[in-house]
Amino acid sequence: MEKNQVTVLGAGLIGSLMAIYLKQQGLEVEVYDKRPDKRKSTFEEGKRSINMAVSHRGWKALEEVGLKDKVMPLAIPMYGRKVHDEHGGTTFISYGKENEAIYSLSRGKFNQLLVEEGERLGVHFNFEYKCTDVDFRTQEIDFQTPEGEKKVLAPVLFGSDGAYSSLRLAMQKQIRFNYKQEYITHEYKELTIPATAEGEFAMDPNALHIWPRGKFMLIALPNPDKTFTCTLFLPHSKSKICFDKINDENDLEILFSNYFDDAYQLMPNLKTEFFTNPTSALINVECFPWVQGTSLLMGDASHAMVPFYGQGMNCGFEDCSILNGLIDKFGTNSWDLVFEKFQKTRKIDTDAICQLAMENFEEMRDSVADPKFVLRKKIEAKLYELYPNDWIPLYSMVTFTDMRYSEAYTQGKLQEAIMDRVMADPLITENWNKLDYEDIIYKMETAKAV
Amino acid sequence: MEKNQVTVLGAGLIGSLMAIYLKQQGLEVEVYDKRPDKRKSTFEEGKRSINMAVSHRGWKALEEVGLKDKVMPLAIPMYGRKVHDEHGGTTFISYGKENEAIYSLSRGKFNQLLVEEGERLGVHFNFEYKCTDVDFRTQEIDFQTPEGEKKVLAPVLFGSDGAYSSLRLAMQKQIRFNYKQEYITHEYKELTIPATAEGEFAMDPNALHIWPRGKFMLIALPNPDKTFTCTLFLPHSKSKICFDKINDENDLEILFSNYFDDAYQLMPNLKTEFFTNPTSALINVECFPWVQGTSLLMGDASHAMVPFYGQGMNCGFEDCSILNGLIDKFGTNSWDLVFEKFQKTRKIDTDAICQLAMENFEEMRDSVADPKFVLRKKIEAKLYELYPNDWIPLYSMVTFTDMRYSEAYTQGKLQEAIMDRVMADPLITENWNKLDYEDIIYKMETAKAV
Repeated sequence: MEKNQVTVLGAGLIGSLMAIYLKQQGLEVEVYDKRPDKRKSTFEEGKRSINMAVSHRGWKALEEVGLKDKVMPLAIPMYGRKVHDEHGGTTFISYGKENEAIYSLSRGKFNQLLVEEGERLGVHFNFEYKCTDVDFRTQEIDFQTPEGEKKVLAPVLFGSDGAYSSLRLAMQKQIRFNYKQEYITHEYKELTIPATAEGEFAMDPNALHIWPRGKFMLIALPNPDKTFTCTLFLPHSKSKICFDKINDENDLEILFSNYFDDAYQLMPNLKTEFFTNPTSALINVECFPWVQGTSLLMGDASHAMVPFYGQGMNCGFEDCSILNGLIDKFGTNSWDLVFEKFQKTRKIDTDAICQLAMENFEEMRDSVADPKFVLRKKIEAKLYELYPNDWIPLYSMVTFTDMRYSEAYTQGKLQEAIMDRVMADPLITENWNKLDYEDIIYKMETAKAV
Repeated sequence: MEKNQVTVLGAGLIGSLMAIYLKQQGLEVEVYDKRPDKRKSTFEEGKRSINMAVSHRGWKALEEVGLKDKVMPLAIPMYGRKVHDEHGGTTFISYGKENEAIYSLSRGKFNQLLVEEGERLGVHFNFEYKCTDVDFRTQEIDFQTPEGEKKVLAPVLFGSDGAYSSLRLAMQKQIRFNYKQEYITHEYKELTIPATAEGEFAMDPNALHIWPRGKFMLIALPNPDKTFTCTLFLPHSKSKICFDKINDENDLEILFSNYFDDAYQLMPNLKTEFFTNPTSALINVECFPWVQGTSLLMGDASHAMVPFYGQGMNCGFEDCSILNGLIDKFGTNSWDLVFEKFQKTRKIDTDAICQLAMENFEEMRDSVADPKFVLRKKIEAKLYELYPNDWIPLYSMVTFTDMRYSEAYTQGKLQEAIMDRVMADPLITENWNKLDYEDIIYKMETAKAV
């Protein structure tokens, strides 16, 4: 054991970034991951989705460690949602103001960049170390490795080992631990829209494409190789349309030609991919405490969320940034204090984003197809333009600021109630341009003061 | 593997009773438990409380297997709560009608009786078999035993292995499993009031004694050896009065002499016991599904509740009774069907009793000390007397009937709302005997019809 040594469990996006922050704090950093080193083996992501959407909180953290400029060239900006209707028509809805975008990034390359950057700084990565148990009294981790079982002393442990965290399981078995894991009714499958014969993107690359169909949906995100990764979200079972009922190519063709025909025309490998690629579940995890002694859960390990707000990784990166700020403040000899402050202040924010991610699924798969929803977004955009400090749309607060998630949630609920009243006008479609915007802001400020 | 063989995990109260039911169905029954055979070793209960309170649902199941008459002599009837105030004064509040009681029973002896009864019928008990994993594809259980690791094939598995169930953990790791474990702020410690010098009970044995003190409480249940087992419920920490702040005999003396003085005078061994006996946590567990293939979670393994309604064991016994009814109906060759029907119908009932158990804690530690509460109970008792089919107090529905817990819950909430209105009369203390009871029933029936 070297002095000032810390251990990170998991070399995924959050673990690798945390390791970089810690190394930059002047610590010795050992990272353990159960998977093989991606640079030495074929790429295999298992249950994780291939695309990430980096937004403000993610970029902020990357900037802090000096990596924003290295990552940006790998990313494709998406300025809004392109909503595809059943007849192939599309509507574009901006995410924010002009130039505000979320950025599509491939998990594999991005993760590799972070690992290499960490190694360059002197972080030591250990792959094929599968954590089987953690003893909080002796502060030892048991690992299964290709060379047999190993014990590692980890007096300071960052558990960024994901939604199915081993550290969390050890806490669940050993301490007074409140825990909830909840699967939603929907599952997902990744599919591909390849580049055209001319080697170009088959659709507009600067948008997140959505085919909202009420109870289910398809989305597509661009990749640098001119392909799109599509994700199909369907109920697992017990619905008219669900994964359980797509058992052959005929079932599949009926679904795609009826509901996603424009995408279907761009998916020559659909049938093979559909029956080869795994169907994956979607889980929400909340737990508390995150700290046991000087072991800490962070990222998906402490708050795995459903992907519908595109905040899972951004929130995990923000965890790293907040922890780094606390280390700046309290130093590297007060881990109890750093971890305790972190869990005490951060929990309400991760609860808020978990909840928002759950709620946003309905918006994505259903509301975006509603002309009233488009109008609502327009009115909110106008409010934002006129009163940029008083009315920031919820999506923008979450995606384009680093306002605390819990504050964004509360403010968002308030704005929602006011917009519900605005939209209740039966003639809103005709009258929206004549709205008394000042009065709306006044109402909001009044409600806030109560 | 014999034909018609079933496996039960856990030889606690629920597992042993289930094994007896299954044996009586003509099946070969293997039971595995991680603990040593109690008849061959010193008694050790670990985290479980020593006393049980058997009520109607429990007796009904015992009667079905023909054991009611054997168990009754071990039980001490408690006809109501004896509430102790801070000055040593007591108030008796009946649980139900005359002769309606809940029965104090010692876990150890009762469990032993069930195991012996099972063995007499031909159930095979295997002790010191600690389940480490369950493989749902091969239907094999891994056990750690004093003779090393063993694998056991269990094509039909009843998982009654308690609040910290191994089967549930295996399900949590392997399948799409919704799961919640929640610790309440309070913990408990068991203490003793010994028999008097004359070898008699030191207090009325036919009551459950409560010292309600708002945020905390002490209770005592009688044992056949003329002692009482007391349970002290305090917050774990972060309160003026909590386990964390009782660090020496002086702290302890201040607490007991200030709040429980009449009990304190009867507890010569308090100081030794307090600092020797463990402080145990209280957990609520809810999960779903309960079934994976032909493995089933039941009892505390699927719905561990806090002890404040005295229904944990009664509910688990009712699980056994309902399963037995389904086996009667569908036979012993349709386990899929039996288990599926069970989880489909039973879940809302166990959710209801878990919720009621949580809510009853406040009643026990706080409301029972309120004269208004006593009056409220009196009015409800009167309603019950006058309209025995229309108004059964919630406690009675849960404790003295086998009405579905979910129905009791709904009806209870309705009655609560009506009683809130009745009690809102500022002169209720003076006027309660002149109440228009028929009108109350009429209001309840009307509300129900809505």
